[in-house]
Amino acid sequence: MNVYSDEYFMRIALKQAQIAFENEEVPVGAVITYDNKVIAKGHNLCEKLTDFTAHAEMQVLTSASSYLQNKYLNECTLYVTLEPCVMCAGATFWTRIGRIVFGASDEKRGFLSISKKILHPKTIVTGSVMENECSFLIRSFFQQKR
Amino acid sequence: MNVYSDEYFMRIALKQAQIAFENEEVPVGAVITYDNKVIAKGHNLCEKLTDFTAHAEMQVLTSASSYLQNKYLNECTLYVTLEPCVMCAGATFWTRIGRIVFGASDEKRGFLSISKKILHPKTIVTGSVMENECSFLIRSFFQQKR
Repeated sequence: MNVYSDEYFMRIALKQAQIAFENEEVPVGAVITYDNKVIAKGHNLCEKLTDFTAHAEMQVLTSASSYLQNKYLNECTLYVTLEPCVMCAGATFWTRIGRIVFGASDEKRGFLSISKKILHPKTIVTGSVMENECSFLIRSFFQQKR
Repeated sequence: MNVYSDEYFMRIALKQAQIAFENEEVPVGAVITYDNKVIAKGHNLCEKLTDFTAHAEMQVLTSASSYLQNKYLNECTLYVTLEPCVMCAGATFWTRIGRIVFGASDEKRGFLSISKKILHPKTIVTGSVMENECSFLIRSFFQQKR
């Protein structure tokens, strides 16, 4: 396996999603890379923080900007196990993130259900990376909740 | 003036926007009310925090949920001096906020330029409250920056 493949970084995001699962959070994990290095990783914390803005993507966007001391993340890639929602996609717009790689699609709440125009025009999107593993985790979570 | 009028609460949001202006932040302020009481107020902190997710609305949504110990804000009203962007409108969706009252329109970056469907279907929106005062502050900020 190429150490810098999308699967490599998605696997790290998936580990974060598993931590969320174990903590009874909707299991979504995210990673931000810069120059092929992980500079931020995190997972959904909405339940723990009683805060709907605490999605995995929001955590890592905040962390990455802090780490780089730069509000703009145009040279970074966001890896996230689930298609970002409108809030998170809207956040990536402001950061002008270079690339978004997501795992499972979210037909109901994903930003693509509203408009691809939500993203910055320079942001490149790749979907369906390790889709089965990512969606299996989410399906298992909601089946267990029922 | 009715103490519980939209203008009354927008004036408090506008004071927050003025604090942002004085701190060289894009001057947007926000307030959340519950039962006609201000439970959260804040302003844009993107420059100070080097973080594009630090919009005024995000601050107050986080604060209000923390105050009420409830992720859902369906009985609350968000007052904000500028039409929310896609990120912030997307955040209000998750909170199911009862009502959004905004001042100035933002034809370029406001959520209405993408779709009103970004909001939760039960959220009621009122625009143009103290529009002149709110947009004057923003115009002054960008004129000063040029």
